[in-house]
Amino acid sequence: MTVHAMAAISAGTPLQAVTIELRETRPDDVRIEILYCGICHSDLHMARNEWGVSHYPLVPGHEIVGKVIETGGKVERFAVGDLVGVGVMVGACGQCDCCRMQEEQYCEQGFLATYNGLDPVNGERTRGGYAQSIVADQHFVVSIPDNLPVEGVAPLLCAGVTVWSPLRQGKVGPGSRVGVVGLGGLGHMAVKLAAALGAEVTLFTTSAAKAADARRLGARQVVISSDEVTMREAARSLDIVLDCVAAAHDLNPYLACLKTFGQLVLVGIPDQPHAAPDVTPLVFRRLSLSGTSIGSIRETQDMLDFCGRHELVADVELISMEQVESAFQRMARGDVKYRFVVDMLASHWPGA
Amino acid sequence: MTVHAMAAISAGTPLQAVTIELRETRPDDVRIEILYCGICHSDLHMARNEWGVSHYPLVPGHEIVGKVIETGGKVERFAVGDLVGVGVMVGACGQCDCCRMQEEQYCEQGFLATYNGLDPVNGERTRGGYAQSIVADQHFVVSIPDNLPVEGVAPLLCAGVTVWSPLRQGKVGPGSRVGVVGLGGLGHMAVKLAAALGAEVTLFTTSAAKAADARRLGARQVVISSDEVTMREAARSLDIVLDCVAAAHDLNPYLACLKTFGQLVLVGIPDQPHAAPDVTPLVFRRLSLSGTSIGSIRETQDMLDFCGRHELVADVELISMEQVESAFQRMARGDVKYRFVVDMLASHWPGA
Repeated sequence: MTVHAMAAISAGTPLQAVTIELRETRPDDVRIEILYCGICHSDLHMARNEWGVSHYPLVPGHEIVGKVIETGGKVERFAVGDLVGVGVMVGACGQCDCCRMQEEQYCEQGFLATYNGLDPVNGERTRGGYAQSIVADQHFVVSIPDNLPVEGVAPLLCAGVTVWSPLRQGKVGPGSRVGVVGLGGLGHMAVKLAAALGAEVTLFTTSAAKAADARRLGARQVVISSDEVTMREAARSLDIVLDCVAAAHDLNPYLACLKTFGQLVLVGIPDQPHAAPDVTPLVFRRLSLSGTSIGSIRETQDMLDFCGRHELVADVELISMEQVESAFQRMARGDVKYRFVVDMLASHWPGA
Repeated sequence: MTVHAMAAISAGTPLQAVTIELRETRPDDVRIEILYCGICHSDLHMARNEWGVSHYPLVPGHEIVGKVIETGGKVERFAVGDLVGVGVMVGACGQCDCCRMQEEQYCEQGFLATYNGLDPVNGERTRGGYAQSIVADQHFVVSIPDNLPVEGVAPLLCAGVTVWSPLRQGKVGPGSRVGVVGLGGLGHMAVKLAAALGAEVTLFTTSAAKAADARRLGARQVVISSDEVTMREAARSLDIVLDCVAAAHDLNPYLACLKTFGQLVLVGIPDQPHAAPDVTPLVFRRLSLSGTSIGSIRETQDMLDFCGRHELVADVELISMEQVESAFQRMARGDVKYRFVVDMLASHWPGA
């Protein structure tokens, strides 16, 4: 089956329309007509080979929502017409400790990435969601509640679950006090999800202009991180802080905002290391500094079910496939509220 | 009641024999004849005012074992003749979240230190265990099992509980794989306690000379931390690493030895900061870096009961009070296996 897609052909050239051949549907496979695909910052990094691991042609996209159009012989959980999602992973070894714990995002062999991964069955590179269709193993396909505006669901598959996982592992619920650093794609989902979980949310931002929006999204407090007085007032007030800023920055002010036993969780990896955090508050207030990477398939499904119950989706800007390059440029300067999502059916493909 | 004690009179002079006046026994107080007192590295720091917070005269000592010789009117848990211990704390606010959680070591008002603390009742500085007796609030007195060699119990009150607390919070038990960095006072207790909890212990040390002793104490593996081959073999093998080295060092090799979801716990505060740890393994392997400070009274009692059941105490070198200054010097260069303990009854007091 040949479908249209947008691919990076090299690190230095814009994405361009291509046709790709999808694999035959294996017994455990689900073939999905893609309706929407979110644009994650990592799509830009990978298209440009900024992490040095890209193989071309490369079809980005791992925030995929679509409709099942074919199922393999062993697929019982999905039927043609079902609304489903595919996130960052489409495979894992299934054998290691992490896979056995259903934490396949930490698979010790490395999970199979939705794009640019090396498919162990056919030896080909996986291709992502900037395309009309995708074929994926049913174990890495999730169900999408049918009461949600579908375009807003796409970013849940990566941005959403990346902050959902630490919120759940941190047992966030009513009475919890949660800090979120940075109001970008991940941060805005963290604010929404934490608030929906019943937590009191404090949003830290460098930009006073974001305060009103943060409150609209569910933040009870907004702290301008350069304002030392307000930062001091927030001292020792939070159970957990999700730090959604990837750029290197000083972690100590956020450690200071944690209560005893509090957790500072990093969801981004900076190009340059963060300055060394003070050990003193770690020891004397039993704080922890940790990181987290996306979330498991089980967590993804739990989050989607939760979002269905709470009628919660991402705030998105819809674009067509032809606008991806300009969206990349706007995203690179943080100019998006809060996630670009490609409307696949509204996109024009050459000759289609 | 006047008793003999050893006090630092100033930062620059050796400890000297003094007499001190103990307070009247309040209703909640227990008066204890001290049999043994461990020598903690912090005693040296405080005697020399190396942390800049010392008040003189200062009577160090917070690893105290003795016999009850008097009880206040409200004391029901202890009777004259009981073998008891006092550790690092003799008070806390009792009102804050941490105190209510029975984690009074993290009291938000600061716990009342066994020595050099400001007693809120009489406005005087507390005096520690380098003395014939001490008076302490019953809530900060623990019971000591009667089947243990008493001199080896004293170091449990600080060194022991400091490593016990993170082992218990880390749910270490049979099947756990525990790393311990550094074989000093704390490290040797960490090895013993983790092994007694049923864990498989790996000891990291810079000194090949410590390998045999580490195995005697309970370590299954000994890794010389400068040996890159062995360090690589230990990669991703441990659930938790207790880092008992206070001097600044590179944390990344120990992060590398953790399994996914592993914890690196620091029990010391370096004079100079550790180099910034890599964020990448924190994120991609869900690692955490945290600290911990002593342990609660409840944890101290649990540990003592556990040690009674396992007939486990510290390895100590017994000295008399007159030898404290030379013990300080040996301790400062790491020359002690593994804790000095003052035998109070064998000590000579001027004029006594």
